[in-house]
Amino acid sequence: MDTFALDERLARDSELLVHLGLCQLRLIKDSRWPWLVLVPKRPGISEVFDLTPLDQAVLTFEQNTVAAALKSVTGATKINIAAIGNIVRQLHVHVIARTEGDANWPGPVWGHGTAVPYGEDKRHVFQHKILEAIHS
Amino acid sequence: MDTFALDERLARDSELLVHLGLCQLRLIKDSRWPWLVLVPKRPGISEVFDLTPLDQAVLTFEQNTVAAALKSVTGATKINIAAIGNIVRQLHVHVIARTEGDANWPGPVWGHGTAVPYGEDKRHVFQHKILEAIHS
Repeated sequence: MDTFALDERLARDSELLVHLGLCQLRLIKDSRWPWLVLVPKRPGISEVFDLTPLDQAVLTFEQNTVAAALKSVTGATKINIAAIGNIVRQLHVHVIARTEGDANWPGPVWGHGTAVPYGEDKRHVFQHKILEAIHS
Repeated sequence: MDTFALDERLARDSELLVHLGLCQLRLIKDSRWPWLVLVPKRPGISEVFDLTPLDQAVLTFEQNTVAAALKSVTGATKINIAAIGNIVRQLHVHVIARTEGDANWPGPVWGHGTAVPYGEDKRHVFQHKILEAIHS
C-alpha cells in the first residue's frame, strides 16, 4: 500500500501548522494574504471526488472549521476556498482570507505577483491565533 | 422568513440546467471552458460555513457528484472547484473542467479575458451529456 508523501512544491511553499484528523493544515509562505492549505493525508489523490465518501465528509468538516476560524481571526471580507491543482496535482484545498483592497482584490490570488515572506514575529502571532481559534 | 432569490449577476451570466436537492445547477455562458456553478437555494448565505452542517454535507455531495460527471463528460486534465465570491456575495461554487492548453492554462479562469458565447447546438449537446452523467 502506498504511503502519503507531501508534494515537494507544497513542502517548499508552505509550512506545517498542525495535523488534523484527515489533513495537514499548512500556512503558505506569503504574507500578502492570510492563506492556509489543507492537504488530505491520502496517497495518489488529485480530485476531491476520488476520496472515499467518508473522507469527503471529513474534508468538508475540517475545511469549514478552518475557514470559520480564519474569518474570525482576520475579520476578512470574504473567505476564498478552492481546490484547483492545475500545477501541483496532489489534492490540496486553499483557504484564503480576502479583504477589500488587498493585493489583486477582487481578483484571485493564484499566479499574482511574487510571494512576500512573513517576518518571524508576524508569523508566530498569526499561527498562534489560528490554532487557538480552530481548537476553541 | 426570507426566501431565496438568485443574484442578478449570476442570473445574467449563467443559465439553469437543473434543480438538485439543495442547489441550482447552472451553466456559465462562456464556451472557453466547461464551467458549471452550484448555487445553494438558501437566502442570505455568503460563506460555506454559514450553511447548516446538514446543508454543508449535501453541498459536498452535490458538488462532488457534479465534478465527477463533468470530468467523465469532458475528459478534463483537472477539475477546479472553488467558492470565491469576492464580487458576487451570494454563495456559489464553481466547478470547471480544465484541460492542458486551454485559455489561461494553468492559471485560473476568473477575471481572464472576455466570455465567448456558446452556439446553440454546442450548448445543447453539452447540457444533455452533463445531465445524463449526473443522473447515471
